Amino acid sequence: MISVTLIGAGNVATHLYKALKRAKDTTVIQWYSRNMSSISSFKNEVEITNDINSLKTADVYIIAVSDSAISTLSSQLPFSNELVVHTSGSVSLHDLDKKHHRGVFYPLQTFTKGADLNFTEVPICIEVENKVHLQTLKNLSEALGCKHYRVNSDQRAALHLAAVFVNNFTNQLYRVAHEITESKSVDFNILKPLIKETASKIDTLSPYMAQTGPAVRNDNKTIKKHLKSLDKDIHKQIYELLTKSIKLTHGKKL
Amino acid sequence: MISVTLIGAGNVATHLYKALKRAKDTTVIQWYSRNMSSISSFKNEVEITNDINSLKTADVYIIAVSDSAISTLSSQLPFSNELVVHTSGSVSLHDLDKKHHRGVFYPLQTFTKGADLNFTEVPICIEVENKVHLQTLKNLSEALGCKHYRVNSDQRAALHLAAVFVNNFTNQLYRVAHEITESKSVDFNILKPLIKETASKIDTLSPYMAQTGPAVRNDNKTIKKHLKSLDKDIHKQIYELLTKSIKLTHGKKL
Ligand SMILES: NC(=O)c1ccc[n+]([C@@H]2O[C@H](COP(=O)([O-])OP(=O)(O)OC[C@H]3O[C@@H](n4cnc5c(N)ncnc54)[C@H](OP(=O)(O)O)[C@@H]3O)[C@@H](O)[C@H]2O)c1
Ligand SMILES: NC(=O)c1ccc[n+]([C@@H]2O[C@H](COP(=O)([O-])OP(=O)(O)OC[C@H]3O[C@@H](n4cnc5c(N)ncnc54)[C@H](OP(=O)(O)O)[C@@H]3O)[C@@H](O)[C@H]2O)c1
Repeated sequence: MISVTLIGAGNVATHLYKALKRAKDTTVIQWYSRNMSSISSFKNEVEITNDINSLKTADVYIIAVSDSAISTLSSQLPFSNELVVHTSGSVSLHDLDKKHHRGVFYPLQTFTKGADLNFTEVPICIEVENKVHLQTLKNLSEALGCKHYRVNSDQRAALHLAAVFVNNFTNQLYRVAHEITESKSVDFNILKPLIKETASKIDTLSPYMAQTGPAVRNDNKTIKKHLKSLDKDIHKQIYELLTKSIKLTHGKKL
Repeated sequence: MISVTLIGAGNVATHLYKALKRAKDTTVIQWYSRNMSSISSFKNEVEITNDINSLKTADVYIIAVSDSAISTLSSQLPFSNELVVHTSGSVSLHDLDKKHHRGVFYPLQTFTKGADLNFTEVPICIEVENKVHLQTLKNLSEALGCKHYRVNSDQRAALHLAAVFVNNFTNQLYRVAHEITESKSVDFNILKPLIKETASKIDTLSPYMAQTGPAVRNDNKTIKKHLKSLDKDIHKQIYELLTKSIKLTHGKKL
């Protein structure tokens, strides 16, 4: 049984709390939020607190607060020599106060409080200062039913950066597509099966092998026609740059 | 019962043939390919031919050949006043010879011969020259179990263009992510659940509402750090341009 104290009450903390509650081999000792109102609805199932000085002993303290608050909060914790981890993809392990046994427990997924999500499919990227704590974090991942990956700081940073491309930037391409279809009064929903299939295809093919379309075919006639039909300058720029990127990747003449 | 003659033997024709075979209310009269070898393995279940002058009567002739071959092929068909459709997102209906009753039957999905695909989830975009043929193409879509959408030429062009953004360009972002993770020897597979979730999220949220990350948060510190850590110039340019696009969409200061 791994005991956990959860710190923070945002998107990640809320999903993590529910997953910890559901897991067999974990127990949530306390849930801290500076703002009681965000967790008061859970008060019948877990001890909640907004008093950082009242934190009890646990195997792991998980700090799931805004990146900019991690460092200060970790210093305010009224104990030392305990295993304290944050959940950020981009904050250094060394931002945690050095009085703690420090670690990172980075769930590589996009969380929104309201949206349901199968936590067992979230890959956990683990970093520890001292190898002796690796097993605890591995056990915690496994108790949650998650795959875990030990990474170093550089690798975590690379994953966080890559996540911006596949999540935020991809979503912006969906947005551009939404603008294009709306401008001609066509239903954006027509594109959803294609969006899904694009994401599924890389289960069996590398993105390199999965590429199709005018850029990789070097079909400059279609490319020109597309560029001409785009109304917004920024859409034209995105079209040109990603077409160039595909051609570079596949060794086509620019 | 709708009778169909299929012309072409590439990705689309092959998937379409299998879906037509499986459907209850359709029958494939003949399958034409200029190259017999691509369809000879089906010769026991359907009449195959490479002689365009031997084509028999059918309710619909579906031309699923390369965009550049559609026009010529449609002129070579040895009959007139029959319903002839192509399957292209970008070719004009008027590229079909005017001796035919012309239409478009554009399956908005990405097809690869080898890869399995549930055809019933493919949206069919229908265009007809003469409204009397609309019902036949609607019935055909329904027989295949597909949703259908009547579109005009402008709308079909917009969908085809939008498809480049959500399919080819998105796939290229996956490729960039693959390069980033490989450069630090991290497993690209860690990103796959995030890729799937990004595609799923827009089932319930618009791409506008689903946006997260440094750009929409106007987190310029993280943006700078990311830009600095990107090795390749083209990756930096993509990062900058899509960040700018997100900021513009969400009314942030550039
Ligand atoms: N969201 C994701 O998709 C995701 C994915 C992976 C990792 N992460 C990481 O997980 C961590 C939490 O992210 P999130 O999305 O859950 O954030 P969030 O939804 O914005 O929630 C932030 C939480 O931090 C609390 N907080 C902020 N400043 C604080 C302070 N000075 N003292 C105490 N509490 C403070 C907030 O409390 P109030 O409600 O009182 O403001 C809130 O409970 C971050 O490190 C983030 O990088 C996020
Ligand atoms: N692939 C997709 O994801 C997709 C999605 C929606 C719509 N479409 C559209 O569907 C159509 C077919 O695309 P595809 O991907 O199936 O193409 P493909 O796999 O490249 O196959 C092209 C087919 O056209 C034949 N062909 C080419 N030139 C010909 C000619 N001059 N005379 C007779 N046959 C000729 C080829 O025969 P050989 O084998 O003998 O060369 C082959 O059977 C295109 O209009 C395309 O825009 C494709």
